Amino acid sequence: MTPRGPINYGNASPAVRAVFDDIKRTRQIDDVNNFWKYLAHDPPTLKRTWESIKEVMAPGALDAVTKEMIYLAVSVTNGCSYCIASHGAAARKAGMSEAMFGELMAVVGMANETNRLANGYRVPIDPAFEK
Amino acid sequence: MTPRGPINYGNASPAVRAVFDDIKRTRQIDDVNNFWKYLAHDPPTLKRTWESIKEVMAPGALDAVTKEMIYLAVSVTNGCSYCIASHGAAARKAGMSEAMFGELMAVVGMANETNRLANGYRVPIDPAFEK
Amino acid sequence: MTPRGPINYGNASPAVRAVFDDIKRTRQIDDVNNFWKYLAHDPPTLKRTWESIKEVMAPGALDAVTKEMIYLAVSVTNGCSYCIASHGAAARKAGMSEAMFGELMAVVGMANETNRLANGYRVPIDPAFEK
Amino acid sequence: MTPRGPINYGNASPAVRAVFDDIKRTRQIDDVNNFWKYLAHDPPTLKRTWESIKEVMAPGALDAVTKEMIYLAVSVTNGCSYCIASHGAAARKAGMSEAMFGELMAVVGMANETNRLANGYRVPIDPAFEK
Amino acid sequence: MTPRGPINYGNASPAVRAVFDDIKRTRQIDDVNNFWKYLAHDPPTLKRTWESIKEVMAPGALDAVTKEMIYLAVSVTNGCSYCIASHGAAARKAGMSEAMFGELMAVVGMANETNRLANGYRVPIDPAFEK
Amino acid sequence: MTPRGPINYGNASPAVRAVFDDIKRTRQIDDVNNFWKYLAHDPPTLKRTWESIKEVMAPGALDAVTKEMIYLAVSVTNGCSYCIASHGAAARKAGMSEAMFGELMAVVGMANETNRLANGYRVPIDPAFEK
Repeated sequence: MTPRGPINYGNASPAVRAVFDDIKRTRQIDDVNNFWKYLAHDPPTLKRTWESIKEVMAPGALDAVTKEMIYLAVSVTNGCSYCIASHGAAARKAGMSEAMFGELMAVVGMANETNRLANGYRVPIDPAFEK
Repeated sequence: MTPRGPINYGNASPAVRAVFDDIKRTRQIDDVNNFWKYLAHDPPTLKRTWESIKEVMAPGALDAVTKEMIYLAVSVTNGCSYCIASHGAAARKAGMSEAMFGELMAVVGMANETNRLANGYRVPIDPAFEK
Repeated sequence: MTPRGPINYGNASPAVRAVFDDIKRTRQIDDVNNFWKYLAHDPPTLKRTWESIKEVMAPGALDAVTKEMIYLAVSVTNGCSYCIASHGAAARKAGMSEAMFGELMAVVGMANETNRLANGYRVPIDPAFEK
Repeated sequence: MTPRGPINYGNASPAVRAVFDDIKRTRQIDDVNNFWKYLAHDPPTLKRTWESIKEVMAPGALDAVTKEMIYLAVSVTNGCSYCIASHGAAARKAGMSEAMFGELMAVVGMANETNRLANGYRVPIDPAFEK
Repeated sequence: MTPRGPINYGNASPAVRAVFDDIKRTRQIDDVNNFWKYLAHDPPTLKRTWESIKEVMAPGALDAVTKEMIYLAVSVTNGCSYCIASHGAAARKAGMSEAMFGELMAVVGMANETNRLANGYRVPIDPAFEK
Repeated sequence: MTPRGPINYGNASPAVRAVFDDIKRTRQIDDVNNFWKYLAHDPPTLKRTWESIKEVMAPGALDAVTKEMIYLAVSVTNGCSYCIASHGAAARKAGMSEAMFGELMAVVGMANETNRLANGYRVPIDPAFEK
């Protein structure tokens, strides 16, 4: 049903190749992930998504590994298999150790549990949080 | 429908008071949040949840502010109003600056967007991620 | 933005009144909940939804309180405030005690936590589950 | 764990065959999808679900392709692999072009991103939206 | 916890004012919604989000009302109150009638139901969908 | 990306073996499921999660099959494939018949549908539910 297969560099348009080249240059990699090869079926979305990711994931007030762990926490919560695999790999590459991954998962699990306890018990927001 | 109102220290059982006392001691606060006052309607869940949170949120391979930011990222993704307010406050107390909050939200937003792009384009997992 | 306010019996069309009458008769109540008064803005959806609910929630292999607790578990997981309030009330009316509510919430919390642990650790399905 | 395999026409009960026949007649197809062959394990759910889908998906104020694209947008947001594949195929059959799919995905991605930005920044509803 | 209140034009920086001006010009409105006044606490996110929304929501292969209805379908599925109110208003402004809204909600409801039926019955993807 | 493969009894640490032994003893089984073999990569999470599950899933005000059905309802709503398979198997082992499963799925489907109808129609909570 969806775009049939990835678009590789060889059969990509100049506009798509330009984005692939920037991803490879920025990330110092030889080839882009499947995510980009599939988004390439819609060049404007490919370009916009890459430029946003490039801006958002650049180290700033938060370092690269913290940003990748937050990305992974969201992906695990949403149950996105591809994203869990890709951002899990990215987080490790950025420096996430097994111990950090274990603690990240423990926090993600507890947050998903207590989010529901707060919903079910219909807990009103403490005035102190609004200060 | 749900337990009617919070259980305050004054009308709490000894078992509940013991948990409230440990929360106040551990967090160096004068009173516990509404979340605990509502969970107090089920003492075993109050005790188990507090002991788990206490263990999981203690600084380890990840520091306190990173853990609170991950908690907030999950709560924002799930749309839990109470949790967004309480863990937003906790993250700031632990040292999250406005700049860190801004970058956290930018990452959470992008992750929620790309999780759906990966779903919709049915992107297969790259063999490299399995290594 | 959405349909402005509830449609009450007094200003309802004959088709809507017929559904309201059946809800009141079936549930032995004097008036219908807001949910039905808002769905009344789309009579076909009102009729179809009520007929489905009436069929699905009737006691069968599962009794009424078990069905209401399952409904509540889903509503808590989705964070639907209206549904948590209405099905929490319905579950209590059907016989859910405070102790049952406490255990229900504990299971819902654990399920939401372990669902994410299974996602994050990318646990493969045991062959035994396929038998 | 779940009903073991699909129920095909050959081994279906008269009640199930009647629904399969109506699906094939309505959609002008030779066989029904796996979704219906698995729901057939619960004939009342099979019948109720088909009758609801038949009513809801019929062209009305919205045409068939718009309805299938909305169905796909929800399925992508929920991460339902089967539904993304089946309603992606149905949307294309109803006339969704690659360009329409690309724009649909771009909107779904942005909506999932901004839903979280609105949650995290705790944005209050503008009075103008209530008019 | 979160940025305290909206940033209005009067107390906005030149960078924020430039985005507000473009939103007002593009949408032909006198003032921007709260969503933008809160995002203004993080100027880079305000600018990037507006530029993405402006590009994604512009009529193309899909018209404006279809795009707003898809946005609303996702927001309803995620339970984002602010987004339901704002995109419901935007969809009506773009031409969504009450009848169209009613059918949209019926499709969103059915999709959320059948997504879970497909999950629970563990329905395998039909080979025909992969063609 | 994630911990590579399961940790089996043979290569488990004494702390992990102690948990595996308790799971096998409590559930009267010869080996633990993959879920536990993967959590074993983080012994504190393995221990805490097992002790919580053991306490929460023990029969009390709710019997074992009701608790497993609630667990399954949440897992189906979240779309967790592993959890749907494992808790589906556990629910059947605890006594869930095909008829009970069929009704469970029907309720889960309706709840997910009406949760969105309540969101989209922005239905206010009835005062009666607050009593």
